[in-house]
Amino acid sequence: MALKLYGTVSSDGTQRVQACLHEKEVDFEFISVNISAGEHKTPRFIARNPFGEVPALEDGDVTLFESRAITQYIANKYEGKGTDLIMKDPIQLAIQTVWMDTENQRFDQPFSKLIEAAIEGDRSGQDVRQYEKKLESVLDVYEQRLTESKYLAGDRFTLADLHHLPGMHFLRSTKAKGWFQGRPHVRAWAADILSRPAWVKVAAMSPW
Amino acid sequence: MALKLYGTVSSDGTQRVQACLHEKEVDFEFISVNISAGEHKTPRFIARNPFGEVPALEDGDVTLFESRAITQYIANKYEGKGTDLIMKDPIQLAIQTVWMDTENQRFDQPFSKLIEAAIEGDRSGQDVRQYEKKLESVLDVYEQRLTESKYLAGDRFTLADLHHLPGMHFLRSTKAKGWFQGRPHVRAWAADILSRPAWVKVAAMSPW
Repeated sequence: MALKLYGTVSSDGTQRVQACLHEKEVDFEFISVNISAGEHKTPRFIARNPFGEVPALEDGDVTLFESRAITQYIANKYEGKGTDLIMKDPIQLAIQTVWMDTENQRFDQPFSKLIEAAIEGDRSGQDVRQYEKKLESVLDVYEQRLTESKYLAGDRFTLADLHHLPGMHFLRSTKAKGWFQGRPHVRAWAADILSRPAWVKVAAMSPW
Repeated sequence: MALKLYGTVSSDGTQRVQACLHEKEVDFEFISVNISAGEHKTPRFIARNPFGEVPALEDGDVTLFESRAITQYIANKYEGKGTDLIMKDPIQLAIQTVWMDTENQRFDQPFSKLIEAAIEGDRSGQDVRQYEKKLESVLDVYEQRLTESKYLAGDRFTLADLHHLPGMHFLRSTKAKGWFQGRPHVRAWAADILSRPAWVKVAAMSPW
C-alpha cells in the first residue's frame, strides 16, 4: 500500500515532505487538502494531525504529522533506497542534528513570517525588516559554515539541507535574492540544492 | 575527559541539557558563561557556538550547539547508561520525533516569548495574550494526547517530555499554572516530569 501524503502544493511543510519522498524514490499518493473549504479542521483530518494543519502522512496504520518528523521517518524507513539523507557516524549525525535544529529554531520562523507577509502584503502587519535582519544573520553563519564543508552537515546532501529547500526557494524568488550576492558560499549551496531533480519536481507545482 | 557544558543556570537551553546529563548519570563540568560581560560574543565562544548563545557542549574534539541536538547526542552516546530516553522501535521513534518537533515548532516560541515578557516586564513590548493563547491551544492538544498515553511519545519518559521541562517549570510558577486546572492529564504529566530527581537538581539552581 502506497504512502498517503495529505497536504497542499503551496504549504512549505508539504513541499519538504514531497522533496524527501522524491529523493528516496518512494511512490506515494498525494491527497490535496481543501484548505479554503476548511477540510483541515474537520474531525477526520484532526485525527491525522491534531493541530489541524498540513501535512500529515499515513503509512498503513501509522499516522504522522510535523514535516521534519515525517522526513526523518521516511529517510530511516527507506535507508537503502534513493539518496541517503542521514549520516551514519554518530558524531557526523550529531553535527547533522545541530544544523537541522538550527533550521528549526532560527531559519524557519523568520522565513515563515516573510512568506506570510509576501502573501498577505500590508495586511500581514508583520515588521518585515525585523525578520529580514534575523534571516540575514542566520545566513552569515551559514556562509561561514559552508566555507568548511560543501553541505551543512558535511560533504554530502542530507536532511539538514533538504529541510531548507522551501525557504531557500522562496528567498531566491524575492528581493532577498540580493542576500546571496554577498555570500558566495550560500549562493553556490542554494544553486546546488535547488537544482536537485527531486526539488525541481516539487518547485514545478509550487504557486510561489 | 569529562564533558564540558558551557551555559548559564538561567538559560532554558542549558537547563534542558543539564536535565539530560543528570538523567543519563553522566559526569560533566559546568562552565558558567558570563553573559553580562559579553563572554558569549567573544571569538573564543563564537568558535563553540557561531550564534553566540548558550549552551554549547565540548566532548573532546567534538563541539556541539543547539540544546535539542546536544540532548540527542548524549542520549545516543550513553545509550546503556541512566534513563533510556530514546524509543528503539522505528515507529515509536517516529512518534517520539513528532512530539519533539511539536515542542520545537509550537511550544517553544510562545513559551520563550512569555518568559521574555516575564523577565523584562512591560519593556518587552510583547503581545503577551497572543502567546498565551497559542500555548493554551498547544496544551489542549497535549491534554488529548495524554489521555492516550502516559507520556508524549508513549508509555515511558523520553526526550519528547524532557525537552518541555524548562517550559513546564516556568508555566507552573506563573499565573499560567491555572491552565493546568482544566487539563487534568497535562497537570498529572507536569507533576510527574517536574518531580524527577534529575529535574529537581536543575530547578534548584534556576533563578526562575
